[in-house]
Amino acid sequence: MRLAIFAALTASALCLAQNPGDFKPAASNVLNAQYPRVDSNSRVEIRFKAPDAAKVRVNFWSGPKAEMQKQPDGYWTFTTPPMAPGLHYYTVIVDGAEVSDPGSTAYFGGSKWASAVEVPEAGETYYLPQNVPHGQVREVWYHSKVAGAWRHALVYTPPAYDTRLKERYPVLYLQHGGGEDESGWTRQGKANFILDNLIAAGKAKPMIVVMAHGYARRAGQSTPDPRSGPPGSPEMRKAMQDMLSAFEDDVVQALIPFIDSTFRTIPDREHRAMAGLSMGGMQTFHVTFNHLDLFSYIGGFSGAANVFAAGNDRLDVRTAFNGAMSDPAAFAKRVHLLWIGVGTNEPERMKQGIEKLHASLVEANIQHVFSQSPGTDHEWQTWRRNLLDFAPRLFQPATQRPAP
Amino acid sequence: MRLAIFAALTASALCLAQNPGDFKPAASNVLNAQYPRVDSNSRVEIRFKAPDAAKVRVNFWSGPKAEMQKQPDGYWTFTTPPMAPGLHYYTVIVDGAEVSDPGSTAYFGGSKWASAVEVPEAGETYYLPQNVPHGQVREVWYHSKVAGAWRHALVYTPPAYDTRLKERYPVLYLQHGGGEDESGWTRQGKANFILDNLIAAGKAKPMIVVMAHGYARRAGQSTPDPRSGPPGSPEMRKAMQDMLSAFEDDVVQALIPFIDSTFRTIPDREHRAMAGLSMGGMQTFHVTFNHLDLFSYIGGFSGAANVFAAGNDRLDVRTAFNGAMSDPAAFAKRVHLLWIGVGTNEPERMKQGIEKLHASLVEANIQHVFSQSPGTDHEWQTWRRNLLDFAPRLFQPATQRPAP
Repeated sequence: MRLAIFAALTASALCLAQNPGDFKPAASNVLNAQYPRVDSNSRVEIRFKAPDAAKVRVNFWSGPKAEMQKQPDGYWTFTTPPMAPGLHYYTVIVDGAEVSDPGSTAYFGGSKWASAVEVPEAGETYYLPQNVPHGQVREVWYHSKVAGAWRHALVYTPPAYDTRLKERYPVLYLQHGGGEDESGWTRQGKANFILDNLIAAGKAKPMIVVMAHGYARRAGQSTPDPRSGPPGSPEMRKAMQDMLSAFEDDVVQALIPFIDSTFRTIPDREHRAMAGLSMGGMQTFHVTFNHLDLFSYIGGFSGAANVFAAGNDRLDVRTAFNGAMSDPAAFAKRVHLLWIGVGTNEPERMKQGIEKLHASLVEANIQHVFSQSPGTDHEWQTWRRNLLDFAPRLFQPATQRPAP
Repeated sequence: MRLAIFAALTASALCLAQNPGDFKPAASNVLNAQYPRVDSNSRVEIRFKAPDAAKVRVNFWSGPKAEMQKQPDGYWTFTTPPMAPGLHYYTVIVDGAEVSDPGSTAYFGGSKWASAVEVPEAGETYYLPQNVPHGQVREVWYHSKVAGAWRHALVYTPPAYDTRLKERYPVLYLQHGGGEDESGWTRQGKANFILDNLIAAGKAKPMIVVMAHGYARRAGQSTPDPRSGPPGSPEMRKAMQDMLSAFEDDVVQALIPFIDSTFRTIPDREHRAMAGLSMGGMQTFHVTFNHLDLFSYIGGFSGAANVFAAGNDRLDVRTAFNGAMSDPAAFAKRVHLLWIGVGTNEPERMKQGIEKLHASLVEANIQHVFSQSPGTDHEWQTWRRNLLDFAPRLFQPATQRPAP
């Protein structure tokens, strides 16, 4: 039986390998670039010009890391097995130099401008631009006394914001992950199109979405570098704590007042949400739980749950954040949504962190939503799905909130 | 005497070579990247990791093209002679692979996401973010029947646009160059900061600036590729003509109506300008001269002047564009500003094209401004200076317009 399955799989793999495919240029390519290409089996073909190189490898950050094959024309090629849907970061390593692929749009990730290839998800259009009214994504600059500097943020305003001049809107603060920046949620995540589509379908309330630069520092200091030591090291913990604290003050003292004075917001906790992915999830937990007077909706997408545990193995929900969750009924009344999610293919350490957080919340009777994204890794398809589930739950009358 | 000068130059070069310099990370670097670095002599030091490469070259598009030196730590380095001020595109060529430098912000240029290094201009702050009110840069999507698609554009709204709700504004349409896209004027050109600073100083009228995607196509067609043949070939001419024509229709039939219905514009020719750089200059001449009913201010920054000549060696100003300039006095009354400029270090072919256009306009008695940017090449510092000179001349009462 086992042999039969193996034989069938091998035949299928051979068949796939022999199938020339129906490869088309990826949607993430630059204008007129023919490679990378994606076929209807979600295989990706990479092609990279390096005529004099001795060795070229492709490095999908959450996918194949493999030698590319040199072709007689000076190009190197590699075709992946079928990939999960979504946007996959990758780099190419040319004789030891890790670089991006000139055929790809560059996305800021891994603290550099990296390549990525968009693998369509069959039947899904929620993050694609549709024939619906579109909001705007605005670059704004605000002066922060905390940072002693002008800071850059992106702000999504919903369709009709500029014509319904008497209307005021609730606000979602939405943070990028470590190594990315404030451009991630729209360029990689397509958050603006997700909101456009949800709003057009009547599934989400029109809202303003604020995407801030997550690397915060205090005036006169340099930006803390969380890579200043090995993961978990005292140097790294200190840098992360410094950044969390500077970011918290920047959001509370500079960003929120700027947004509330610049845009037609409803400036109260009932109409203010925050969510973030990975590092941005950690920042979200830190900022919101320390300021429940300002926020009533909280989302952690693959969010670093360790901010709850504060370095301990076990998480004591009842004492965390000065006991904010010590009374589950009071917490459920105060916080309209505590949402946590993770992709089922994320690295074990990340999955276990979120699952442990979920288990602790269940055990402590804390009402929350736990969502698993099937088959996706620590990548943007997970977070697009997270936003798709999260956004409709925001700013709804209590009786109309989707059940957790 | 010649020997003495040579000796002095050599001594000075040696001195510079021995001077360790006061190198600092470039403003154009990604967060925390230490290289490229720039010193106060405007020398640029590039450092690139490629431990197993046999040959690494640095390729400044308008600057040194040189072999880099391998260091024992696997990094390759190169220090340029003093560079002109401004943003210099470059790539690194690793064993034949032309790639971007991971230490640099990626800018869309040369039809790919390339590296660039910002060399400060001593004493100049006009394109830097200052402590003045900032406008917003908005991403908008408009549906174009010409293209049969949603198209992306960036729109600068001046400071206070969202608070002075009764005020209406004139509009400058501002186009990028070939190989770049609509992000160029703000990301590379800093047009938003130039306008913020000019407006704060009372030197330019508050205006809306629209930056559109210059690669136009008609519904059902693929984007014409001006690289489909060698420069000057019939294929290239045809592709360029197709793009010009599609762009013209898109601007006139889709973009302008969208902008005028979405923003608080003053929707008449007296309050509408267009300018562009290089390919965008060619597009500007094409669109504006064919639609003088829509535009009254025209700017060509290093702009492909050949659109006037239509392939001929001599330009007949009087017959070009159906004789729009056949009556110099009438033209001067109708077109409030015809502005052309070029950098003194641009390639001869480009310089001569603009100079020939200038000479033809002088000869034909066509009132215009001709501006030369000292010491700069076909690069962004030329176009930043062009905008700095051009914008204050727009939308001023006739009596207050700066003299040509």
